[in-house]
Amino acid sequence: MAKQKKTAIEPTREENYPEWYQQVVRAAELAENSDVRGCMVIRPWGYALWENIQRGLDRMFKATGHVNAYFPLFIPKSYLEKEAEHVEGFAKECAVVTHHRLEAGPDGGLVPAGELEEPLIVRPTSETIIGATYAKWVQSYRDLPILINQWANVVRWEMRTRLFLRTAEFLWQEGHTAHETEGEAWEETRKMLEVYKTFAEEYMAMPVLTGEKTAGERFPGAVSTLCIEAMMQDRKALQAGTSHFLGQNFAKASNIQYQSREGRNEFAWTTSWGVSTRLIGGMIMTHGDDDGMVMPPRLAPSHVVLLPIIRNEEDRASIMAYCNEIAAALRQQRFHEREIEVVVDDRDINAGEKGWGWVKKGIPLRAEIGPRDMANHSVFLARRDTGEKQAIGRDEFVGTIAAILGDIQRNLLARALAFRREHTREIDSYAEFKAFFTPANADRPEAHGGFALSHWCDGGECEARISDELSVTIRCIPFDRAAGGGGGCVCCGKPSSGRVVFAKSY
Amino acid sequence: MAKQKKTAIEPTREENYPEWYQQVVRAAELAENSDVRGCMVIRPWGYALWENIQRGLDRMFKATGHVNAYFPLFIPKSYLEKEAEHVEGFAKECAVVTHHRLEAGPDGGLVPAGELEEPLIVRPTSETIIGATYAKWVQSYRDLPILINQWANVVRWEMRTRLFLRTAEFLWQEGHTAHETEGEAWEETRKMLEVYKTFAEEYMAMPVLTGEKTAGERFPGAVSTLCIEAMMQDRKALQAGTSHFLGQNFAKASNIQYQSREGRNEFAWTTSWGVSTRLIGGMIMTHGDDDGMVMPPRLAPSHVVLLPIIRNEEDRASIMAYCNEIAAALRQQRFHEREIEVVVDDRDINAGEKGWGWVKKGIPLRAEIGPRDMANHSVFLARRDTGEKQAIGRDEFVGTIAAILGDIQRNLLARALAFRREHTREIDSYAEFKAFFTPANADRPEAHGGFALSHWCDGGECEARISDELSVTIRCIPFDRAAGGGGGCVCCGKPSSGRVVFAKSY
Repeated sequence: MAKQKKTAIEPTREENYPEWYQQVVRAAELAENSDVRGCMVIRPWGYALWENIQRGLDRMFKATGHVNAYFPLFIPKSYLEKEAEHVEGFAKECAVVTHHRLEAGPDGGLVPAGELEEPLIVRPTSETIIGATYAKWVQSYRDLPILINQWANVVRWEMRTRLFLRTAEFLWQEGHTAHETEGEAWEETRKMLEVYKTFAEEYMAMPVLTGEKTAGERFPGAVSTLCIEAMMQDRKALQAGTSHFLGQNFAKASNIQYQSREGRNEFAWTTSWGVSTRLIGGMIMTHGDDDGMVMPPRLAPSHVVLLPIIRNEEDRASIMAYCNEIAAALRQQRFHEREIEVVVDDRDINAGEKGWGWVKKGIPLRAEIGPRDMANHSVFLARRDTGEKQAIGRDEFVGTIAAILGDIQRNLLARALAFRREHTREIDSYAEFKAFFTPANADRPEAHGGFALSHWCDGGECEARISDELSVTIRCIPFDRAAGGGGGCVCCGKPSSGRVVFAKSY
Repeated sequence: MAKQKKTAIEPTREENYPEWYQQVVRAAELAENSDVRGCMVIRPWGYALWENIQRGLDRMFKATGHVNAYFPLFIPKSYLEKEAEHVEGFAKECAVVTHHRLEAGPDGGLVPAGELEEPLIVRPTSETIIGATYAKWVQSYRDLPILINQWANVVRWEMRTRLFLRTAEFLWQEGHTAHETEGEAWEETRKMLEVYKTFAEEYMAMPVLTGEKTAGERFPGAVSTLCIEAMMQDRKALQAGTSHFLGQNFAKASNIQYQSREGRNEFAWTTSWGVSTRLIGGMIMTHGDDDGMVMPPRLAPSHVVLLPIIRNEEDRASIMAYCNEIAAALRQQRFHEREIEVVVDDRDINAGEKGWGWVKKGIPLRAEIGPRDMANHSVFLARRDTGEKQAIGRDEFVGTIAAILGDIQRNLLARALAFRREHTREIDSYAEFKAFFTPANADRPEAHGGFALSHWCDGGECEARISDELSVTIRCIPFDRAAGGGGGCVCCGKPSSGRVVFAKSY
């Protein structure tokens, strides 16, 4: 392939990380901005990735006893207002439906008409509308638990948007469960966080830390928010999924009451948990390189592309036959939970351009197949993760493709883990903390920072000072915080029961 | 089981068909009305049915070369206005977003704030927003065809709603394709109609007629609308899916232009096609009976429920072990494209109530398993479609379950075909036509009508007169209309090139 040394994506990650990200999304044909403010078009290659994410998660949700259902897109304003912190958290960024038709206006154009008695909010999340339904379903402890998930679109009117990471409309799943006891609801909250961690690491090859959010970073209305946090290649943290213990707050707001085993009326204990198309942004920033996207094989829309190299028209039929035979043999193989998915790309375009297109899209394997390969009963195989290229026998290729894909999957996770390890540091002085989070070179803002494991006094003032001065926040309080021993707060020096995770973040 | 003769659903179909329908939806736990006007909650049993519909259709769409993508929920008002007939068709029933936040109002409550410069319409269908994107993607004939499908929610502010059949928000798929030539676009339009027909008959066991809509019944903005039409048990027609040939109307509205092989700028030719959660309503009204829902096995969320009959606590462990062993053996079997899905219902509730619950939900097979069945190495099996009950050996049950399910699937289709045949008639006089569509007994409005195959002069006046006088419309013009020979219009007597299908409809 041509263009050695030159990278497929400009700028490179070093040159301008945020712009590199946008260019990868574009070059890999994952998504694009639409003409509707903040709303994206998810293109077929990006949507196929989302379908694979859905399939993997859905299987895990069902294996943990959940079923899917579907609730209304619209939430009456009065429902959102039922939980004070909740509405406070979402009122500033919600799409409001006020009319139910258009009619000819005074200047001939159409204007909104048929004003609604009560405005409807396009769901930013569904605790209140689902809670109203659960209140009808639940009478007795026998009706509990309710373990339901919903795949849906939601809207949060963000002012600054970025494809996949922060968009006005996004796709997600939201689990909503109701339980008889506080203990059961806590167990559910933790269980689903573990599902997310397992999925992030085993499917996305994206290592995550788990822990609890500070009070200031909680979901509006939650008693506690648990999260998974990943480190991107610019060393910033990405909150990739959250699981909320809602206590009885939303049950009280929605009146989800049940008659207990003792015959008393009690409020249920509820949880909610979600991940979104943001996960795709996380994969791009974990695995992507200066040539574009790198897909983890377990989620890649296709595993391998066969690229017939036809220099003379008389070779076409025989090379295509050889390619199609190999494709058929590969499709008989399985990797993880799927059959091997193969693309035979016989488009009549420049071979170099074609190959680079697949590099940018991040397909795990590319196999070039020309007359010489056919004569040698081989293919010329390139791995996207390492860039290694080698001729490999046709039979060996077919027989070992699952093993090769497994190796790529492991390599991506190992590489991301090593990166996180390299950029995670225990820091005990504020001077060092400040230096860690300050770019040494203004031209390379991404070449600093990471995860600082530092002591914290649990005070909101220190948290706010660090956020104001350095744009650094507490990403999570590890569950085993105390295991590492106490110390003095990195900011004020007061006693701390253990280290927490600080980072800049998306 | 108890309650012989008494039906599980009240009223029966004969007594009050529309109310019977609502009661089946409720009793089968498929869906319910939400507190949001016209929006439904799709309950887990109904949503699992929808997931199976999605899986079956999605496979067929992909096998015909389509890929999935996702486009914005919101459509700028000016986009909807680009196609005159289109906006005319949807302006009267659309949800309009006018504000992007809530803030404290004068009386303390929250009021809409942050008015948008241009109102956004919650998509009632996506031709215009998708067209705007295709216009960017298409430069040359090499960029065509575009063959994309989207699974999404849409909103049409209907005044009178009915669960699944007509709701303000519903779930659907919408295919949107763009082509180089008129012929290709027509081929696509017809191909997708065939996909719908195949799906309706082979998966839903719901026979459908195909044909073209009259000008008055076309999709707003289409050149031609093709449809599948099914007959419900009240002999009314249900339009179950449509495939639109859009000509160059939307390409011109959205400016989808390409450079042709001859170097000229041309407008693309587009199509769109969709089916929705309405299909679930169609299945209920095709197969349901006075005991509730009847699920066609290919789409049933579960194929069989095992009902342990435990009269003495000391039998519990051994009966449960026997049930679980049978469940495991059944799950090794496959039916059609899936593994056999088995529920073991060991809830500690009244056995009769439990059994009737599953009857109402329409699960294809119920197997009661008590101490005597266990001793005989058998189960007591009931078929939902025929009501037949018999003891059957455990090994025979496991070995033949796929065959039994196949038999149920065939029986449901045959029964529905026979019903349609019985209520389809060639009618040549207006007197007979009028009598056919007029209830002989006002107390049993469902016991009349059906499909009348009658001649029509192609005149809008006759169409309107029949609609006004009898609430009967032309459901479709058969593709082979002329094959049956000409005649005189059933309404005015003028020449007709062949019969068309008249019916009352949903």
